[in-house]
Amino acid sequence: MHFEPLGWSPSGALRVLDQTALPGEERWLELDTIEGVLEAIRELRVRGAPAIGIAAAMGLVAVLRSRAVAGGPTARSDFLSVATEVGSRLAEARPTAVNLRRAMERMRRRAEATPGDWAALLAALGEEAQAIWDEDRAMCRAIAEHGQALMRPGIRVLTHCNTGSLATGGIGTALGIVHRAAERGLDPEVWVDETRPLWQGSRLTAWELGRAGIRHAVLPDSAAATLMAQGRVDVVLVGADRIARNGDFANKVGTFPLAVLARHHGLPFYSAAPSTTLDPATPDGAAIRIEHRPAAEVAAPCGVPVAPAASPVFNPAFDVTPAALVTGYVTERGILHPPFEE
Amino acid sequence: MHFEPLGWSPSGALRVLDQTALPGEERWLELDTIEGVLEAIRELRVRGAPAIGIAAAMGLVAVLRSRAVAGGPTARSDFLSVATEVGSRLAEARPTAVNLRRAMERMRRRAEATPGDWAALLAALGEEAQAIWDEDRAMCRAIAEHGQALMRPGIRVLTHCNTGSLATGGIGTALGIVHRAAERGLDPEVWVDETRPLWQGSRLTAWELGRAGIRHAVLPDSAAATLMAQGRVDVVLVGADRIARNGDFANKVGTFPLAVLARHHGLPFYSAAPSTTLDPATPDGAAIRIEHRPAAEVAAPCGVPVAPAASPVFNPAFDVTPAALVTGYVTERGILHPPFEE
Repeated sequence: MHFEPLGWSPSGALRVLDQTALPGEERWLELDTIEGVLEAIRELRVRGAPAIGIAAAMGLVAVLRSRAVAGGPTARSDFLSVATEVGSRLAEARPTAVNLRRAMERMRRRAEATPGDWAALLAALGEEAQAIWDEDRAMCRAIAEHGQALMRPGIRVLTHCNTGSLATGGIGTALGIVHRAAERGLDPEVWVDETRPLWQGSRLTAWELGRAGIRHAVLPDSAAATLMAQGRVDVVLVGADRIARNGDFANKVGTFPLAVLARHHGLPFYSAAPSTTLDPATPDGAAIRIEHRPAAEVAAPCGVPVAPAASPVFNPAFDVTPAALVTGYVTERGILHPPFEE
Repeated sequence: MHFEPLGWSPSGALRVLDQTALPGEERWLELDTIEGVLEAIRELRVRGAPAIGIAAAMGLVAVLRSRAVAGGPTARSDFLSVATEVGSRLAEARPTAVNLRRAMERMRRRAEATPGDWAALLAALGEEAQAIWDEDRAMCRAIAEHGQALMRPGIRVLTHCNTGSLATGGIGTALGIVHRAAERGLDPEVWVDETRPLWQGSRLTAWELGRAGIRHAVLPDSAAATLMAQGRVDVVLVGADRIARNGDFANKVGTFPLAVLARHHGLPFYSAAPSTTLDPATPDGAAIRIEHRPAAEVAAPCGVPVAPAASPVFNPAFDVTPAALVTGYVTERGILHPPFEE
């Protein structure tokens, strides 16, 4: 039922569905250079906090394999230092999601803990990347199961951005709960925020739901309030890019206003995310660094200039939702509440 | 300092700036057919509740003059019945703004109250249309003056849609207050919601502010909450398309969530509108009919297909803000509070 946007190619390259081409085209990329992997992450060809972590781990392996095949460093220490350098660059490709840095850290530790020559290191890193992916797939399933406590027949879910199979290594997080409800025959209906400025709702969530045969409709982000006022929303379900120890969390810009609106209308508001998104080292939302993205995403939507070229733009990629507005956090360990300790 | 998007052409046609071509091009249309005037209003070539009422009144005169010149009905009763029919069709061009219907009603009464032949009727209607325009210009000035009570040096205003000279017959309503503050040397700064789905903020407000040399930045509608949370907004100023007796008011979709967010952040939230927007015959927001617009505005922004063609769309043009969230209503009579009686 769900769709896997990541894979290995026969050559050992990272294979990713170019999500910037959706829904018009299903274009696959094969990446085995650091520049290629960085570009795919930075340009959101692969996106979603869990998927970015998986793609970076697999990409690291693909880059190291291709360098080794091309006669790159094979002495253990040289190979390790290249692996560390490539991993560090990938870790910085996007600043907000914790999964990316955590995946790179995990790969680094696995390499250091693995004895033997470069071939043994490469094999171990390949196993580790695959494990990160497999664990995410299992986590998505577990999140979806725990999330069933929020579902009921004909439930009307409002969501933002894309948190489905396109964002993860599995069925998805927030949208995974909906996918699972549909598998169970609950016939959920999804209100899909288009999600300016990059249209992850219109382009990705609507495409994914249509492919899965789940009822849905797309709306301007600013129309969600009207649906709530009209009593046409039962629950708001969103993902998370980073959840601080106190429960404040960063997610796609537009999440925080939904939380305020849900509170105003007395609606439950849940964030669904694997526990790898919990970041006890970050005390609260004020400590989360928010990525600001290029003005053209706002000023020239779909590449068409709309705002005057001289007008400045405010374009934060994420916002921070305070814990006080969150009903609960659906993770693979159950529905949790802060504080989130190690 | 401000810009007039309406006028008479030497032939007596209605001259309007085609706002759908902004900010790329300043394209003027000359309209003297019912189809042309209807199309310009329906396709938002002229928009903004006050400007629509003025354009419809001027358009009615232009259509009747051109029909008379072309040998149309000249018997008084025939001319009156054509005027009534054209006026009725124009009154229905868009359903939400009260100004449009009120302007057509005023034109009808003036025609019926005018003695003499068709030439006398046409002259009277021309005077009436000009009076509607002149009164709106004066009302904008008065609104802007009363709104100065909300202004202070360096004030940071968040606004939605376009409520400036492009939306009215004068300096504007909500944005007119900012224009006036700039004239007074207060150096205001404006956060401009891009205003999905039709980009009135990016296309029109940013263009108008840039032309007036007023500091501003454009943002996705969903990023306004972040600015408020960061303490970077002092006041929210919006327009109104229809204000019910109890103070509930319809305005561009995206207004209501700003009111909820302003309340959440303890910020003042004002609607600025001429008193012609007050509609005591409408008891409350529930009685306001909301226009729903075509799916393509959401699914294919700037004409580029983004959402899957099969995905349904929810696209209300307006939303309703409950009176309880409104700090005050800035009109040409002062800052008012409901209920609004005749």
